[in-house]
Amino acid sequence: MPAKARSRDGARQDRAAATRELILVTAERLFAEEGLSVSNRQVSAAAGQGNNSSVGYHFGDRVELVRAILQRHSPPVERLRAELVADAADTQDLRVWLGSLVRPLPEYLASLPGPTFFARFGAQVMVDPGYRELAIEDAMSSPSLHIILGRLDRLLPDLPTPLRTQRRVMTRQLMVFTWAEHERVLAEDPNGPHLDWPQAVAGLVDALTGLWQAPVSD
Amino acid sequence: MPAKARSRDGARQDRAAATRELILVTAERLFAEEGLSVSNRQVSAAAGQGNNSSVGYHFGDRVELVRAILQRHSPPVERLRAELVADAADTQDLRVWLGSLVRPLPEYLASLPGPTFFARFGAQVMVDPGYRELAIEDAMSSPSLHIILGRLDRLLPDLPTPLRTQRRVMTRQLMVFTWAEHERVLAEDPNGPHLDWPQAVAGLVDALTGLWQAPVSD
Repeated sequence: MPAKARSRDGARQDRAAATRELILVTAERLFAEEGLSVSNRQVSAAAGQGNNSSVGYHFGDRVELVRAILQRHSPPVERLRAELVADAADTQDLRVWLGSLVRPLPEYLASLPGPTFFARFGAQVMVDPGYRELAIEDAMSSPSLHIILGRLDRLLPDLPTPLRTQRRVMTRQLMVFTWAEHERVLAEDPNGPHLDWPQAVAGLVDALTGLWQAPVSD
Repeated sequence: MPAKARSRDGARQDRAAATRELILVTAERLFAEEGLSVSNRQVSAAAGQGNNSSVGYHFGDRVELVRAILQRHSPPVERLRAELVADAADTQDLRVWLGSLVRPLPEYLASLPGPTFFARFGAQVMVDPGYRELAIEDAMSSPSLHIILGRLDRLLPDLPTPLRTQRRVMTRQLMVFTWAEHERVLAEDPNGPHLDWPQAVAGLVDALTGLWQAPVSD
């Protein structure tokens, strides 16, 4: 291919990547602020795309758009989680391992400039029956998460399996919805009386430690 | 008005009330199983209404439909909650008051015949930015809930206000999402190894007791 054609081709790919990124950022914000019933057409318009079907062109269908938003944030969160696992090493301290479970997402969000939308987006995806499996699949694709869950399994109190499952589900719910709520409060009332990210992380680790160590009543 | 016209009028009102009820039940199920992005047109069709705009005719807009689904269940839940408040009387037992907070919804759902959808519907309404205020307004319209929250305020450990708020939010989230998940598991795997409703209620009260009594770390 002559150099000129290659450069034209490169420029076209750059433009497509930039448009894709713009659609991802816009869709995440709209879903976070207005809900998953926002249409692809509304996303295209808000991203300044003259073509109403640009979401379809760049992502195929809605499921692929949601998957791409999830995957956009996975690598940096996974890097933080892997560091926490390395730091925890061989400790038997339940709080440290609950911390390695809880901390990656809020520490990543706190590191981003400006308001974030990903926690609220994630909460809606987690609750919507059409996307729930996708969100779980994305979360469980993390190698370091499996290490953490394995360590917690050995450290957590010995409970009958269905009760253990119930507490595991409660833990997952608090990990998702606590950050969605924290993000919402920060966005709506940035100067209000609220916990900062590290205080909120410590508060959730305390609460989960209490939840797991709670005695089982008759 | 002659007797015959009155009776024609009564029959028309009965038919309208039956159609309204059918749309409510259908919409709750579709929202629970497929998410809030299900359209009014899909709800009308699934309710067997030849007229695609029957949701609009009977409920005005989508917000009024969601409000009507919430309000359909409020009175029986409120009756159960008022009974629990009367039974708790003057006790200072934290578990009893957490129980009066947690038990009304699952005990109501457990009393219904067949599969239920309201908990999953409620979880989605609670997470969607467009309906969140409506769900909170509906919940807070319960007189007995205010009595319970006042009693808990005096019984719960003395914490700095933002941490207290964080634990209150976590409690609300677990009250909503625990039952949505329980309902989903019952629907998808009715014979699987899961807690029954009373065991799940006891498990949540135990977990919340541990969560509230957890010491605050530095």
